[in-house]
Amino acid sequence: MIIDCHGHYTTAPKALEDWRSRQVAGLTDPAQTPQASDLKISDDALRESIETNQLRRMKERGSDLTIFSPRASFMAHHIGDFQTSATWASICNELCYRVSQLFPDHFVGAAMLPQSPGVRPETCIAELERCVRDYGFVGINLNPDPSGGHWKEPPLSDRWWYPIYEKMVEHDIPAMIHVSTSCNACFHTTGAHYLNADTTAFMQCLTSNLFRDFPTLKFVIPHGGGAVPYHWGRFRGLAQELKTPPLKEHLLRNIFFDTCVYHQPGIDLLTKVIPVDNVLFASEMIGAVRGIDPETGFHYDDTRRYIDAAATLTDADRRKIYEGNARRVYPRLDAALAARGR
Amino acid sequence: MIIDCHGHYTTAPKALEDWRSRQVAGLTDPAQTPQASDLKISDDALRESIETNQLRRMKERGSDLTIFSPRASFMAHHIGDFQTSATWASICNELCYRVSQLFPDHFVGAAMLPQSPGVRPETCIAELERCVRDYGFVGINLNPDPSGGHWKEPPLSDRWWYPIYEKMVEHDIPAMIHVSTSCNACFHTTGAHYLNADTTAFMQCLTSNLFRDFPTLKFVIPHGGGAVPYHWGRFRGLAQELKTPPLKEHLLRNIFFDTCVYHQPGIDLLTKVIPVDNVLFASEMIGAVRGIDPETGFHYDDTRRYIDAAATLTDADRRKIYEGNARRVYPRLDAALAARGR
Repeated sequence: MIIDCHGHYTTAPKALEDWRSRQVAGLTDPAQTPQASDLKISDDALRESIETNQLRRMKERGSDLTIFSPRASFMAHHIGDFQTSATWASICNELCYRVSQLFPDHFVGAAMLPQSPGVRPETCIAELERCVRDYGFVGINLNPDPSGGHWKEPPLSDRWWYPIYEKMVEHDIPAMIHVSTSCNACFHTTGAHYLNADTTAFMQCLTSNLFRDFPTLKFVIPHGGGAVPYHWGRFRGLAQELKTPPLKEHLLRNIFFDTCVYHQPGIDLLTKVIPVDNVLFASEMIGAVRGIDPETGFHYDDTRRYIDAAATLTDADRRKIYEGNARRVYPRLDAALAARGR
Repeated sequence: MIIDCHGHYTTAPKALEDWRSRQVAGLTDPAQTPQASDLKISDDALRESIETNQLRRMKERGSDLTIFSPRASFMAHHIGDFQTSATWASICNELCYRVSQLFPDHFVGAAMLPQSPGVRPETCIAELERCVRDYGFVGINLNPDPSGGHWKEPPLSDRWWYPIYEKMVEHDIPAMIHVSTSCNACFHTTGAHYLNADTTAFMQCLTSNLFRDFPTLKFVIPHGGGAVPYHWGRFRGLAQELKTPPLKEHLLRNIFFDTCVYHQPGIDLLTKVIPVDNVLFASEMIGAVRGIDPETGFHYDDTRRYIDAAATLTDADRRKIYEGNARRVYPRLDAALAARGR
């Protein structure tokens, strides 16, 4: 079984974007503010948006199940206030839930949170619990920078975030640490801000004792961990200078990297440098990089090919990367699969 | 001949730090502001600080010449105003010049600029020209984020920066794109901010036509290019989506990566993915990561070992990385060496 832990609903019907545009317009002209119930998307429209896109690709590439969350770049937590994000998150999560109900063998949800810059994270708990309890979601996406590239929130190691961590531990769900659109002209969203956030989050954990306070807390750092595996020697050396325990002990019981690295040499490095127990298969397909690599003739984001070709991996390693690790990191997914005899 | 293109004067005598502390104290209590002439460091003190540190390591490791600039984390352009930075840059550059005069076979200078947040870059031209003309410096360090982690300056592709580029082209000097201390609690200076800046700078160039406006402008992106080589497929794919020319044409006539990547797998990836003509030897020794790697028994920053061991490189490749590329990217260095019969 092949589980892709990083999929977003990037192909939602256009009505969703239209609704959001009206919501944003409503921030300056309240008369335009739509009701949540104004959004109408039929099951057929949802089905088509998935069958012709993600599900088609999953079948072509041989992956079975995707952990599916709202489109990351559309979270745009910097827009409006908490109420703006609360309505938007609720709508987006519900669509992912409906996809998971229409295709229960192929999709399971992960929640976007209604974060808003400077607003205490505990305001997100109601949506988190609703998604776990009512929607059977198995994880959340946590945005370390709801300002969208201005980085005004405290580091992830700060007690500011602890109310979220307490709920994650209580419900046994991991967080993928995932920023959204950059509204800082310095940072291109998918070419700089995403990767920077991955590196930043790792280093925030490295310089803290977060996982001493939360020994069972789990973070998935996407996009292959940003710059981290490539600079693994640097991070080992920094940890040594900071006199933390070795990284394996200090962080690797709690931090996992996905495989959204879009060329063979990157995946080769990732799987060589990072212990195989800490690598989870992912493609973020139909995401940042949708084209075909002229050097291979295949889609850049067809990451399964790289993992299959990674010379240092054994078949047992691949089973961990494709399935075993995801079932361990997402225990609610494992339970849901087991309940269905998978 | 082995040229290390990335060295900072991290081991300057303590008197320098003391002077800077008084300068910073003077920002709130002007009575404490020191004169530049209050800083007294003898040639013997300079000599000792180099002989027992950088030069000793260079001899141990077999590198010949270091392009030497003021300590990056101490530039701290966010402190004070332009005048604060102007005095500080002038002092720091002069010390690097004196080192280059004391050890002319082993050190040549690169300038720190007196940048200050929000201040137009043309204010730095006088110091740039002084360093080139009077000190024989062969390059500059350009800080894309003088705010220190708040990223308030326009991207490097903006015309804001063009006056600097015009002077770089006129004097035929490259810039290493190097940030300084982060004063944003989200970003650890050497573990996040440095690497993020490298990735950010590359992407700022990718999304622009900067090198169409300045076909001979040259940037060295340090720390092995941040996350860029590890995600080379992602960047190739993003370039394709943005319909830029292929990266080789679009950026690699103008952008070069150093080898400050502190483990073998990272250097293996760098030298495999990035054309050998775009890789310059560097160690940033006695810098961010000073310890000994228990996995190898050698210093993390002894990058020569990794390059010597990189299996895909030929001897001709190594000559380019160690010497040829640096002489091409730093033409004033090449001329200075040629004048000395080297």
